[in-house]
Amino acid sequence: MFDAHIYSTRRNKLKSILNNGIALFLGNNYAPMNYPANTYPFRQDSNFLYFFGLNDARLAAIIDFESGKEILFGDDVDIDDIIWMGTQASLKDKSAQCGVKETRTYNDLEKYISENSGRQIHYLPPYRADNSIVLEKLLGIKPSSQKKFASIDLIKAVVSLRAVKEPCEIEALEEAQKIGYEMHSTALKMTKPGIYEREIAGAMEGVCLSHGAVVSFPVILTINGQTLHNHCHENILKEGDLLLVDAGAEAPNNYCSDHTRTYPVGGKFTQKQKEIYEIVLKANKEAIQMIKPGITFQSVHFYACKIIAEGLKAIGLMKGNTDEAVKQGAHAMFLPHGLGHMMGLDVHDMEDLGENYVGYDEETKRSTLFGTAYLRMGRKLKEGFVVTVEPGIYFIPALIQMWEKENKFSEFINYSKVNEYLNFGGIRIEDDILVTKDGYRNLGKPIPKEVDDIENLMSC
Amino acid sequence: MFDAHIYSTRRNKLKSILNNGIALFLGNNYAPMNYPANTYPFRQDSNFLYFFGLNDARLAAIIDFESGKEILFGDDVDIDDIIWMGTQASLKDKSAQCGVKETRTYNDLEKYISENSGRQIHYLPPYRADNSIVLEKLLGIKPSSQKKFASIDLIKAVVSLRAVKEPCEIEALEEAQKIGYEMHSTALKMTKPGIYEREIAGAMEGVCLSHGAVVSFPVILTINGQTLHNHCHENILKEGDLLLVDAGAEAPNNYCSDHTRTYPVGGKFTQKQKEIYEIVLKANKEAIQMIKPGITFQSVHFYACKIIAEGLKAIGLMKGNTDEAVKQGAHAMFLPHGLGHMMGLDVHDMEDLGENYVGYDEETKRSTLFGTAYLRMGRKLKEGFVVTVEPGIYFIPALIQMWEKENKFSEFINYSKVNEYLNFGGIRIEDDILVTKDGYRNLGKPIPKEVDDIENLMSC
Repeated sequence: MFDAHIYSTRRNKLKSILNNGIALFLGNNYAPMNYPANTYPFRQDSNFLYFFGLNDARLAAIIDFESGKEILFGDDVDIDDIIWMGTQASLKDKSAQCGVKETRTYNDLEKYISENSGRQIHYLPPYRADNSIVLEKLLGIKPSSQKKFASIDLIKAVVSLRAVKEPCEIEALEEAQKIGYEMHSTALKMTKPGIYEREIAGAMEGVCLSHGAVVSFPVILTINGQTLHNHCHENILKEGDLLLVDAGAEAPNNYCSDHTRTYPVGGKFTQKQKEIYEIVLKANKEAIQMIKPGITFQSVHFYACKIIAEGLKAIGLMKGNTDEAVKQGAHAMFLPHGLGHMMGLDVHDMEDLGENYVGYDEETKRSTLFGTAYLRMGRKLKEGFVVTVEPGIYFIPALIQMWEKENKFSEFINYSKVNEYLNFGGIRIEDDILVTKDGYRNLGKPIPKEVDDIENLMSC
Repeated sequence: MFDAHIYSTRRNKLKSILNNGIALFLGNNYAPMNYPANTYPFRQDSNFLYFFGLNDARLAAIIDFESGKEILFGDDVDIDDIIWMGTQASLKDKSAQCGVKETRTYNDLEKYISENSGRQIHYLPPYRADNSIVLEKLLGIKPSSQKKFASIDLIKAVVSLRAVKEPCEIEALEEAQKIGYEMHSTALKMTKPGIYEREIAGAMEGVCLSHGAVVSFPVILTINGQTLHNHCHENILKEGDLLLVDAGAEAPNNYCSDHTRTYPVGGKFTQKQKEIYEIVLKANKEAIQMIKPGITFQSVHFYACKIIAEGLKAIGLMKGNTDEAVKQGAHAMFLPHGLGHMMGLDVHDMEDLGENYVGYDEETKRSTLFGTAYLRMGRKLKEGFVVTVEPGIYFIPALIQMWEKENKFSEFINYSKVNEYLNFGGIRIEDDILVTKDGYRNLGKPIPKEVDDIENLMSC
């Protein structure tokens, strides 16, 4: 599926956008856990994967935009490496795999950069501290200043390419969806009173690992869904709880899936839960139906917020003019995050390059309002973009109490009614959507989200 | 089990060993995977855990050996943190949990260090690059020189305390053993022709995660056991293969287990496999029986090597004087690693502090011979030490071919016979052993290792 031609073509496209200086790409290294040799599972840098496709540690590469030259820097293994880690492809073989003609040792990178001092070196913002130390050594820029001096031209060029998924990338995303589907099916089956959250989360991750995949982010699986990124799994599920499950796979091809479902422990939603669930589901489905090239994701976000505000008004939790409520940000007490984000090689695609370069542009500016400010993606959609659509409604006691004390948005929020929901938790429903030529495609086999479907499956 | 008194007592013991300067302990931070906010599971620094017991990111602490003062540096959460991550204990609560009286903000650490400039600041060798950057900022020492300037006095003092396990630590290790036992039982049950290595490895890790634990190191599960740290799991098991499974749990209390078993795919060892297996098993059992205070682990290692050399001689793979063969290192072609290592909060306990400080002393010096040089632990055993005992026999084609070409140790190795084993793979058998007052205790419920027991269980 991915061959040398794919990577050469991507680099050639980059060369057609930029025409001065040299781009420096540092691959990732093993990240130590509790001592140097006990490392976390290796994760290559996504930009390095995109342009070179090599999934090994301690590699770097340059592209010279003036001469067109490309060099891969790395080292071959010795007998000790073979004894401990097994045989590996040679650096020459690796360079052939991605269509790069010239190779040098990793240590030669310093020499190469000093030979080219005076020329512009484009680099992307580092997020691994070990690479920051390498960058300081190579370029003399202190770690604390490296983000500031990263190349905006290179960032913008990379975003313009990576944002539009190629057919082979969509296939790769579908592979991840299959594993994600199996993870979520496992969770639905196991959601029963008396089980620990960690038992379900562990089984889900086990399913993922069994495919040679890893989780695309740490599993969120909690009866306290009101905490948006809750990684505590120590609670026992009991009848009447809501279990929020936000999880995805990163397939062996490094592409991701990311879905959220919310299940009623015991198999039946209470009336109160069902009312809130149906509002979130409506927001999820109608927002998805709006997806097409040319529409801004910010407007889709606000549309979903409006559905949520109207739904909450219908059951007495909000009041007043819902357009005005959303404009001023009153709904954000219930939905304090954005509708979604780009997805691809990263589950929040290209977030290392800066959310505003990925999700915004000259035309669409990021809001500074509480809640809406968390919207990572706002700009106009194009064919080939992949975004998540993940509305939610949460009852966050600390936030409710703070706002009520400040009497904030009391013209839009019915605090006395809201206080009846302090132990409700949270609901989120999330799908992964490809923008097609004239609309959208919901990626992967559908994971049940209708109330009846969930209740029927849970009663099996 | 672990309370403030435990941590205070440990710090007081440290104060009784060192009496000048200040010890600086940097806790770990979240480690980014593919962008800043997508992080690996948090793992606290083990030294920080040992002296302060706090399992949260972005903490630091000092102990002033002259005034006796102790300060915990960290920050309280704000409303945004609560929305995303939930409520957390305050810094004051955290300091109370470990019996430290004074707290300051994390950023105050820089001020504190500059106020104390001129005094000796003891620090341990950093292994996380982000902490190296912090150390450079605090102490002005370049990352590449930080290991060199780490405090040998502090290293030695910490090793002297952490090496001898307290009763509560032994209980904690037993908790990890329970999870490790369940992981290995899962692997034994799943070892059948037609399954992928990754399916078993994934299920094992799933079991571990279900307990709220993590793997104490990346699972080694391979039909190519001759590659010592083989993390490729893409092979399908077939009848007649040997499956080497080296895995352990790090319990929620952060203490570890580490066991290796080798199973015959199909349920029956071939005659050739059985012969080699029995040699490794003999080395494992007899080495364990030697464990007691006062004996050097180096001598236990050499005893195990001798059993292996004699066993290999008995079946015609080695020849000549086995004492001389082991002395010169000829056996290391089959066993190119050490017999074991210390275990505790780290699976290779305290490896970040330097293997030679942990495993060697004035009395016992590290060998430079190939293979034996990998022995991490050599020194005299004391009551309360916990070590692994993990002999193995491997047929590593690249090593065999290299040595044969060099005609190396041809007086001890029967290369023509060895060449009949090029596709054999490798066998390792590993247990976790506590040094008791007058002998040893094999920790945890025994994981089957006798040929008959394994074959009977696999035929169920």
